Amino acid sequence: MNNDIGVIGMAVMGRNLALNIANHGYNVSIFNRTVKKTKDVVYNNPKKTIFPFFFIKDFLNSLKKPRCIFLMVQSGSSVDNVISSLIPYLNSGDIIIDGGNSFYKDTIRRYHELLKDNINFIGAGISGGEYGALTGPSIMPGGKKVVYNIIKPILKSISSKFDNEDCVSYIGPDGSGHYVKMVHNGIEYADMQLISETYSILKNILNLNNEEISNIFSFWNKGELKSYLIEITKNILLKKDGKHDLIDCILDSAVNKGTGKWTCKNALDLEESLTIITNSVFSRYLSSLKSQRTLASKILSGPKINSIIHNQEDFIEKLRQALYLGKIISYSQGFSQLGSASKKYFWNLKCGNIAKIFRSGCIIQAACLNKIVDIYKYDDIIINLLFSPYFQDISNKYHSSLREIVSYVIKQGISIPAFSSAITYYDGYRTKESSANLIQAQRDYFGAHTYKRYDKEGIYHTNWIE
Amino acid sequence: MNNDIGVIGMAVMGRNLALNIANHGYNVSIFNRTVKKTKDVVYNNPKKTIFPFFFIKDFLNSLKKPRCIFLMVQSGSSVDNVISSLIPYLNSGDIIIDGGNSFYKDTIRRYHELLKDNINFIGAGISGGEYGALTGPSIMPGGKKVVYNIIKPILKSISSKFDNEDCVSYIGPDGSGHYVKMVHNGIEYADMQLISETYSILKNILNLNNEEISNIFSFWNKGELKSYLIEITKNILLKKDGKHDLIDCILDSAVNKGTGKWTCKNALDLEESLTIITNSVFSRYLSSLKSQRTLASKILSGPKINSIIHNQEDFIEKLRQALYLGKIISYSQGFSQLGSASKKYFWNLKCGNIAKIFRSGCIIQAACLNKIVDIYKYDDIIINLLFSPYFQDISNKYHSSLREIVSYVIKQGISIPAFSSAITYYDGYRTKESSANLIQAQRDYFGAHTYKRYDKEGIYHTNWIE
Repeated sequence: MNNDIGVIGMAVMGRNLALNIANHGYNVSIFNRTVKKTKDVVYNNPKKTIFPFFFIKDFLNSLKKPRCIFLMVQSGSSVDNVISSLIPYLNSGDIIIDGGNSFYKDTIRRYHELLKDNINFIGAGISGGEYGALTGPSIMPGGKKVVYNIIKPILKSISSKFDNEDCVSYIGPDGSGHYVKMVHNGIEYADMQLISETYSILKNILNLNNEEISNIFSFWNKGELKSYLIEITKNILLKKDGKHDLIDCILDSAVNKGTGKWTCKNALDLEESLTIITNSVFSRYLSSLKSQRTLASKILSGPKINSIIHNQEDFIEKLRQALYLGKIISYSQGFSQLGSASKKYFWNLKCGNIAKIFRSGCIIQAACLNKIVDIYKYDDIIINLLFSPYFQDISNKYHSSLREIVSYVIKQGISIPAFSSAITYYDGYRTKESSANLIQAQRDYFGAHTYKRYDKEGIYHTNWIE
Repeated sequence: MNNDIGVIGMAVMGRNLALNIANHGYNVSIFNRTVKKTKDVVYNNPKKTIFPFFFIKDFLNSLKKPRCIFLMVQSGSSVDNVISSLIPYLNSGDIIIDGGNSFYKDTIRRYHELLKDNINFIGAGISGGEYGALTGPSIMPGGKKVVYNIIKPILKSISSKFDNEDCVSYIGPDGSGHYVKMVHNGIEYADMQLISETYSILKNILNLNNEEISNIFSFWNKGELKSYLIEITKNILLKKDGKHDLIDCILDSAVNKGTGKWTCKNALDLEESLTIITNSVFSRYLSSLKSQRTLASKILSGPKINSIIHNQEDFIEKLRQALYLGKIISYSQGFSQLGSASKKYFWNLKCGNIAKIFRSGCIIQAACLNKIVDIYKYDDIIINLLFSPYFQDISNKYHSSLREIVSYVIKQGISIPAFSSAITYYDGYRTKESSANLIQAQRDYFGAHTYKRYDKEGIYHTNWIE
């Protein structure tokens, strides 16, 4: 046999990716630790060019050289274990592609370990969920460019398309592909939190029912807010469960798989003010404390919601503007972090290309990404997207809506951490003279940590007590 | 010679600690990598029982057994280097005490490495700045209890006192002492940020001058806000630099040494919603982008400050309440993190004792810590301080002031990330039914991540598209 590519791991993402590759005319060898899953894939897809194997050796022998092996297994130690099981049978020049949600530092480590044996490693972030894996995901491959070029035809064929452009692009060295996927997921956390806060406002302040809220999202999805997450939110709110709306039956305890957390920890290391994503992650943590919240709701008081909205239409439009500005501030923070990482890790990331491949296939696909693509066309090293004419324009038009919504909703006792951190960051960023002089004075007072001055160069220390 | 203890590292903290120990009747051997610093200490303090050494071997030979060696060197690789230089001359049972700001995971590693050679290691967090080191710091020692008992008399004698109680207490195993010091520093970041936001409001909304603001802090320092940081803020605002107030000359770019960042990264790992400290760290990062902020101030618009405060006294009292509630919410978050860490790392931390030793000597010493000591007297495993009668009472009395201040100040275009995250956390924590059900629905929609339900047990997945 001389199959084009192998896929290891037949859980939903791996299975769908294998089917996607086969659908594009390639012969695909598949393998899974438990035999049954492999058999099921073939049994359920009898007419596809998918070939099952039950031993690693046979699986690898079925591939043409250099062999390309897609790992679609759970991130963490499973990836290391599968790589170890492959090594004895691999030849110099073979290519392992990790398509899971691996932590980028693990990818860097694996890349260098495999390089010692002349095995090529590509860490490819893949976004699009199970449906995207089957019909066209957004793909973020990192590793050697020459190695990427070998697998490029397959990746391009299976990727999502936006205006006939493939949603795959070479990202950069070693772990950069998984890094970009990580930041993508962070942005996804913030998008979801902003939407859920909007839902909360529409529900609790305007007392709208799910169908009415769905209609609003549906309307918004025709304009600048157009995005996959708004689209599915609109659908979610209409879903029935017998007589009830399903959304009302779902427990309000959000789970996370850690990629949001990784993004925030990295932002802290890079000294990037990634406030919206981080507050979104904290908000998920808080949501998981259901029993504490229930108890607190009984003993910690707040205002009664007293929502006399005189012009509902006007309020909803302001909320739309607030949501959109919150979203683009979050994107500014995320792309600023990409820029910092690119510099710090010498990755030479092309933020314009990254925005391009986010436009279709992935979870955060949104109309505003096209605006970001345009911005980077003219300036590939822009320091902060808020400096671009488009972002500037939206900020100046919408900041008072965001400000008004946050101010109003906080007064009503409803928690909107993502909205709040958006306006707080915006106002902090445009503050010429902040109050951090006092912090520097305190640090010098108690710890002799020194300070700089406005009026002269140099480093100063004051004996404050004399 | 048969000296009681040795101190390595004659920078300001090490020097002052050595003097403090000598002042309490002990004979102290001192050593520093550069000879001059050692000589200077002796030259400047001729009457103290301090004995200089210029070779490690001589330094160690001067100590009685088991030898106790205090390391007061820069955290990081310097600590490892000094330890390596000591090992050849140490005997089984000797005790190394790291009194620097070491990362707790490094302390855990060093503890176990040294244990192999039967060298005892104590990681002791020390807070109080240079003045505290000399006159009485707050000390947080972690390691073996039996080893702590050997050095206890010295640590007790040099520690700060609160109502005749020593501000030193055995914390727990291996890295727990440095961990508690790390969280102490995180709380310090939040306290400082809350105070600097208060200063910003008094300056920008009420247009008060530094002396007027100082008077307000001075008045507040007589009540429940009484604390070291309020005290020094009051003094800072009065400090002159020639004709000017010094505070107005200090550049508003805050620096950090990383311990705040460590606290936040650990909170993310523990799934603790440490929002106030984290937003304070992000705020420092933002402050450091002075040139970006200056540019942004010209192109990103905001409201003109339009502060018609009809009753200034009333506003100032509300601000005081907001600051105090912000502070106690921040302490709730910090102590919740200590509780989580204690459980996760099997440290059996006594939060009541920790609050006790924070009451004097350290940077975050504050009247409210006495309230926390009282709370833990009755319930040492309280889940969240907000559930205690005192915190509950303050919350219920002050939440509307905090809410009103945040709502008003955001409308004026002034960034107050710590205040905002305090009220947002408060409202999030007391929310019985949050909007996280939508997040769970979205996760299930795009990634088949499943959800739980209100109305029945189990894990569910919906095919949302059919």
